[in-house]
Amino acid sequence: MSTAEVRTAGTPVAPASTTAPRVGVWSEAGRLRRVLVCSPGLAHLRLTPDNCDDLLFDDVIWVSQARRDHFDFVDKMRERGVEVLELSDLLTEVVAQPAARAWLLDRRITAHQVGAGLVEPVRHWLDDLTPAQLAEHLIGGLTFAEVPAEAGGTFLAALRGQEEHPFLLAPLPNTQFTRDNSSWVFGGVTLNPMYWPARRQETLLTAAVYRFHPAFPHDDLEIWFGDPDQQPLDYGAATLEGGDVMPVGHGTLVVGMGERSSQQAITQLASRLFKADAAERVVVAGLPRARSAMHLDTVFTFCDRDVVTAFTPVVDRIRTLTIRRDDASPVGMNVTVERRPFVDVVGDALGVELHVVPTGGDGFGARREQWDDGNNVVALEPGVVIGYDRNTHTNTLLRKAGIEVITIDASELGRGRGGGRCMTCPILRDPLE
Amino acid sequence: MSTAEVRTAGTPVAPASTTAPRVGVWSEAGRLRRVLVCSPGLAHLRLTPDNCDDLLFDDVIWVSQARRDHFDFVDKMRERGVEVLELSDLLTEVVAQPAARAWLLDRRITAHQVGAGLVEPVRHWLDDLTPAQLAEHLIGGLTFAEVPAEAGGTFLAALRGQEEHPFLLAPLPNTQFTRDNSSWVFGGVTLNPMYWPARRQETLLTAAVYRFHPAFPHDDLEIWFGDPDQQPLDYGAATLEGGDVMPVGHGTLVVGMGERSSQQAITQLASRLFKADAAERVVVAGLPRARSAMHLDTVFTFCDRDVVTAFTPVVDRIRTLTIRRDDASPVGMNVTVERRPFVDVVGDALGVELHVVPTGGDGFGARREQWDDGNNVVALEPGVVIGYDRNTHTNTLLRKAGIEVITIDASELGRGRGGGRCMTCPILRDPLE
Amino acid sequence: MSTAEVRTAGTPVAPASTTAPRVGVWSEAGRLRRVLVCSPGLAHLRLTPDNCDDLLFDDVIWVSQARRDHFDFVDKMRERGVEVLELSDLLTEVVAQPAARAWLLDRRITAHQVGAGLVEPVRHWLDDLTPAQLAEHLIGGLTFAEVPAEAGGTFLAALRGQEEHPFLLAPLPNTQFTRDNSSWVFGGVTLNPMYWPARRQETLLTAAVYRFHPAFPHDDLEIWFGDPDQQPLDYGAATLEGGDVMPVGHGTLVVGMGERSSQQAITQLASRLFKADAAERVVVAGLPRARSAMHLDTVFTFCDRDVVTAFTPVVDRIRTLTIRRDDASPVGMNVTVERRPFVDVVGDALGVELHVVPTGGDGFGARREQWDDGNNVVALEPGVVIGYDRNTHTNTLLRKAGIEVITIDASELGRGRGGGRCMTCPILRDPLE
Amino acid sequence: MSTAEVRTAGTPVAPASTTAPRVGVWSEAGRLRRVLVCSPGLAHLRLTPDNCDDLLFDDVIWVSQARRDHFDFVDKMRERGVEVLELSDLLTEVVAQPAARAWLLDRRITAHQVGAGLVEPVRHWLDDLTPAQLAEHLIGGLTFAEVPAEAGGTFLAALRGQEEHPFLLAPLPNTQFTRDNSSWVFGGVTLNPMYWPARRQETLLTAAVYRFHPAFPHDDLEIWFGDPDQQPLDYGAATLEGGDVMPVGHGTLVVGMGERSSQQAITQLASRLFKADAAERVVVAGLPRARSAMHLDTVFTFCDRDVVTAFTPVVDRIRTLTIRRDDASPVGMNVTVERRPFVDVVGDALGVELHVVPTGGDGFGARREQWDDGNNVVALEPGVVIGYDRNTHTNTLLRKAGIEVITIDASELGRGRGGGRCMTCPILRDPLE
Repeated sequence: MSTAEVRTAGTPVAPASTTAPRVGVWSEAGRLRRVLVCSPGLAHLRLTPDNCDDLLFDDVIWVSQARRDHFDFVDKMRERGVEVLELSDLLTEVVAQPAARAWLLDRRITAHQVGAGLVEPVRHWLDDLTPAQLAEHLIGGLTFAEVPAEAGGTFLAALRGQEEHPFLLAPLPNTQFTRDNSSWVFGGVTLNPMYWPARRQETLLTAAVYRFHPAFPHDDLEIWFGDPDQQPLDYGAATLEGGDVMPVGHGTLVVGMGERSSQQAITQLASRLFKADAAERVVVAGLPRARSAMHLDTVFTFCDRDVVTAFTPVVDRIRTLTIRRDDASPVGMNVTVERRPFVDVVGDALGVELHVVPTGGDGFGARREQWDDGNNVVALEPGVVIGYDRNTHTNTLLRKAGIEVITIDASELGRGRGGGRCMTCPILRDPLE
Repeated sequence: MSTAEVRTAGTPVAPASTTAPRVGVWSEAGRLRRVLVCSPGLAHLRLTPDNCDDLLFDDVIWVSQARRDHFDFVDKMRERGVEVLELSDLLTEVVAQPAARAWLLDRRITAHQVGAGLVEPVRHWLDDLTPAQLAEHLIGGLTFAEVPAEAGGTFLAALRGQEEHPFLLAPLPNTQFTRDNSSWVFGGVTLNPMYWPARRQETLLTAAVYRFHPAFPHDDLEIWFGDPDQQPLDYGAATLEGGDVMPVGHGTLVVGMGERSSQQAITQLASRLFKADAAERVVVAGLPRARSAMHLDTVFTFCDRDVVTAFTPVVDRIRTLTIRRDDASPVGMNVTVERRPFVDVVGDALGVELHVVPTGGDGFGARREQWDDGNNVVALEPGVVIGYDRNTHTNTLLRKAGIEVITIDASELGRGRGGGRCMTCPILRDPLE
Repeated sequence: MSTAEVRTAGTPVAPASTTAPRVGVWSEAGRLRRVLVCSPGLAHLRLTPDNCDDLLFDDVIWVSQARRDHFDFVDKMRERGVEVLELSDLLTEVVAQPAARAWLLDRRITAHQVGAGLVEPVRHWLDDLTPAQLAEHLIGGLTFAEVPAEAGGTFLAALRGQEEHPFLLAPLPNTQFTRDNSSWVFGGVTLNPMYWPARRQETLLTAAVYRFHPAFPHDDLEIWFGDPDQQPLDYGAATLEGGDVMPVGHGTLVVGMGERSSQQAITQLASRLFKADAAERVVVAGLPRARSAMHLDTVFTFCDRDVVTAFTPVVDRIRTLTIRRDDASPVGMNVTVERRPFVDVVGDALGVELHVVPTGGDGFGARREQWDDGNNVVALEPGVVIGYDRNTHTNTLLRKAGIEVITIDASELGRGRGGGRCMTCPILRDPLE
Repeated sequence: MSTAEVRTAGTPVAPASTTAPRVGVWSEAGRLRRVLVCSPGLAHLRLTPDNCDDLLFDDVIWVSQARRDHFDFVDKMRERGVEVLELSDLLTEVVAQPAARAWLLDRRITAHQVGAGLVEPVRHWLDDLTPAQLAEHLIGGLTFAEVPAEAGGTFLAALRGQEEHPFLLAPLPNTQFTRDNSSWVFGGVTLNPMYWPARRQETLLTAAVYRFHPAFPHDDLEIWFGDPDQQPLDYGAATLEGGDVMPVGHGTLVVGMGERSSQQAITQLASRLFKADAAERVVVAGLPRARSAMHLDTVFTFCDRDVVTAFTPVVDRIRTLTIRRDDASPVGMNVTVERRPFVDVVGDALGVELHVVPTGGDGFGARREQWDDGNNVVALEPGVVIGYDRNTHTNTLLRKAGIEVITIDASELGRGRGGGRCMTCPILRDPLE
């Protein structure tokens, strides 16, 4: 299956590669101008009931339907004037540049990643692929069976014999959720060391795109956290995922702290932002341990200047900290424990009173719609969001609150557990004045 | 509880700190001369039913009994002339050296590990501890509650409030199984990047001991794999644990490949050994996926020159590869898939016919004794092993095969799932002529 | 939501209640004439991420879409002339009869099921419901909150306060899979004691329908196994589920033996069939322990006289036994272990050579399509089956083998893990001559 | 292994079989006069890492040590004048009576339990066993391999071939916890339908003992709940386990309501006790859902007239209901929700102020000792309890509160998760005046 169709399917938008490098995310609900997505593809065709736990996907999906629904999602964003960049396309264009291909493969095809006996033959074989083929395998994974035995050496044939270990490079199906592996925060970006080792290789692909693709300001790239060319690369307990990162504006970053994003990463990010004069305040949402609160954006997202949607059984239990710049402190910042509710703290930072639209339905229904990403909407502009069609009760409440809800089909896209916000990485978004 | 008693309890052995640096492991059953152990302690007092899964321990244990039984284990090795080094003691002596303390804390108390807001006050507070206190917390962990709020800054107090996250430094109860985090292979050592993140910090402690303690040849230390001062520190898919590493001698290293030790690490280790002329052959035991075959030494250990004990339901399913030096190959080595049984391949490498003593008992009993580490014995010299008392059927079979089995109590020590081999890291062991 | 729409939505079929009692299933692929189904409804609206494990459903579903797709499934069967009976409708008609309502509630609203303090007020309150309301709660469950506090006594109010236990009668979402709780085998029926206690109450509802609804021959009902009016009602280890039961004809019943259906039940059923001269042979398919082989029909179904579809990685591991009538034996039967493959044994019993259409796709794809019920098709007549649309590779192989495959949408229906065969309980099916 | 030694090991107590039938439990801390226990044995020798989850045992144990420690437990009770009855011995004496053997085997060796093809040969073979052999297999289980193929019929040989299903009769290792399957409540007994099907067969054995052994008043036996000769035997949602049942005296029964014991059973028991004038009040402890609060006695037990030990993090969350006799109510009883703490409600019922001794240790330690049954002590007389040695902090607190704590070794006995109270079924216990 070729992944090129999504971009070329008759949209009036200029090709990504000629776009001027415009980046920066200044709010959660300002006009969205450029966004990065990644359509389901080869990686998802390799999900089975046996491997999906290891690959961190909740279920197998029907890939051609998921691609159809993802196209519809992209199309609806384009209709609203959003420039949508597809990771597969960008990556293809990147690995067409010899220097970029070398930079990426030097970091991907290492002895640590593929084994000392395989680096040479695998690198050699990958070097001969077309850019599109290479990009497809970097996201979709590579099986031992796909590399011909005569590619070189004795290790390929010997290791191919392990039935329980078919992958030479593991598939990365969670690239569908482009939100997580990088986050644009105001004028710079974080390249996120994610919690699960199975997702860590995603970040390298995005890093290569940001560094080498003409659509991005590569050499001037401001990396707040996670630079892959800076040692040490072992981030230890410092993990960060974009589902927790919300640059709400007014000098304020909101970050969820829980299973996926740790204080070790958050405090480093805060310190860096303060030093660069890029933020004044980081509001930390301490999430309770709950399967339903993986990321902050699974229970709380912005819909408008002063409207958010929230799953209150979890949001009401958030423990809120505020980190502020403090030149008198040896670490350049201090932290306070907030006594007021999380939503009020965020509203105060923005200078508005936030209206909360709760998850819809009765006790059963609200839990069902939260699980189906009812609160995980993505704003295209103030008052306009994209959400899943199935969350009819929550969507109705949002509409009654004056929000325009554009719906997309969740039947396949949502099975990996992620909604509109999870599937988008905003590259350029206006501030809310 | 002080951890100093183990060393000082009236044993006639010279203090570790005055011992000449003698290292090297040349077989699996030759005379054991020096060995590293780590008694249960503070880390185990912090295991609860709620956190033991996260801390990778099967159950809570009664620590004072476990310490008594571990003392008995150490004592029985000393009675046989083995010099037993206790990690807590060595670490105490190491952190008494200012340069060593700095080296270690520079790598342990980092923003990635404790957070940007805590590095300064925590490092400051730790710097004031006595060497014994510091060593105890490095192994036993540190709670937020143990650092006084007035130690500095605002972060300590704010983060202390997270009830579900009591640890500033996580306890390392698996240090009890000194076998895993480092492995002496002939004249050098591997400092192992272990599979589970929760165990990775163990290796740094052992590395500090090897590098700074007078009992080791620090500057001349030959590190085959895992040097903590060499970048990149992110080992990716290259994981190695000592329970899989068996330097059987005759130029041959046997390594288990499975959940814990990957081909990515094994092939790098092989390559390094070949380049250093330290080995001629690496026999790789491809373990089947089975909860009972975590490490190779859970199903297969040496008892004598030509006697091994094995849990045959698993060992018979091992897929065996042999890696050999090959100067004609671009990677300096080649690999072949063996058609003969694993035990025969190992025997051939050693030039002996190996006699296999199976796990004892009927179908139920053998599974029970394998689970209780019946095959995880440690040889003190050819024909003399230490095993758990409860494995009466396997011990009887070993004795009928002429092996002297010295028994120790497993009721507490064994609950973390590990036997005599797991609890010992041989530093100096003679070859089998 | 009313469940009445399904039946009344403009179909030309005569109302179920006026249909003559015609029953009997004589093959797996002969013409299907009458079938029992159950549309998703209230029970599914109560599934949440927290309770779906307890209620034995893999995920929450979008109920209105699932109902739409189920209607399409029913409609496609009706277009082929199948008389489709909806359990909700039949149950509504049954509880409209006072005697039937009493028979059912006497068995459902007992102290064992609802507690001594609740029997009276709950029974009283249920007695006042309309037939449609009562039927809906019998399938969809009843929360404490739905019964007014003033319904009587002090227990209602006191027990309503347990937040973690909202259900007075648990929902039965697996009624959607009507295949399992009863099975027509030739001229009689089994009322199945299912494996999981959470599904046991389903059988009582079906039993009431068979016993009291005019569409069935109630008093002349031949119950092979599981009569709810026969003691003891505690079936112990004797469990049976319809997904394992296949009356293939030629005097032969094929039954899967595994997690769900036990030899304790199968041998009793065989004995009864032999005594009634209703069968000559029971072929038992001993399923390997595998998550993907819950029921025999998840890996093996009939498509035509001589065509079956099978997931061969599991079917090839089936251990086959044949039980035959044997008047010389004290138990009236004997059993032999077959050496030939399962499919050959079944073919021989039928006197045909069975052509096997395997699950389609590569190694990954076949596992994916088996999981998505690619092999769980239901035959409407010889050579015509209904399967899920997403299993494109398997459906293509079936079509190449000459089978007409009518497709339905699995995106919601399939999330409970069950396909066309699971969602149908044939009441009347012709033999294959 | 013979299980006869326990009883005959030189104790001065009269043989059980000549003891006059004296029964009745009138308090939780009055003098204990007769008690039923069951030593570990054959059932435990069959526990493996693979089957222990199915058999509901937390780990494999070293059986000979567990037997030694259980003997010590029994011996310490006998030293205090308690008459200790061993289930294996009583069962042996029971099955020596032909009528009793028939009664038991008629209910145990049924088609539902062993399959239609096996009833005859298995019953025949069991009938030829000695009483001791039969009793041992009834508790310890029976493998297919233990019944000779020539015992009759073709089914034995055919079913023996299923490697994954070795048991014809499953072992019952949880008989060690005699507390659960029956409960003496004042002058009568409950024969408990337990929560897990894997434990249900235990109750039949105890029922046979109570019905046929001369040490019990068989025909005059007052069975409050669970009579195996009364239909229906299918208890549905009405489950009860003795770990939740506490006849504290003063006409009051305390019962835990949670995973194991349901309101369906508790309300029936209350109704029966009220009708028989055997109790005036049933205090129901609604346990929170927590792995550590399986039964009420895992968090709360009596030590003296006015001293209890409790794990307060759970006990403080108990929701308390009181059921009282109410002749004006159609169900003869009413229920009220208590606003006061559980311990106060119990104290008021007894007319004393209860002093609570909490689990000892710091935050980690208390969770560890609760897990190791620190609160699961059994009182031998007012102020004298037996507890596990390892719970040193809790035992110290009890001693400081004036309680005499006799300790036993938990290293093997405790691995099945149960302490002194779990391992004893009091038959005769004095009231607290």
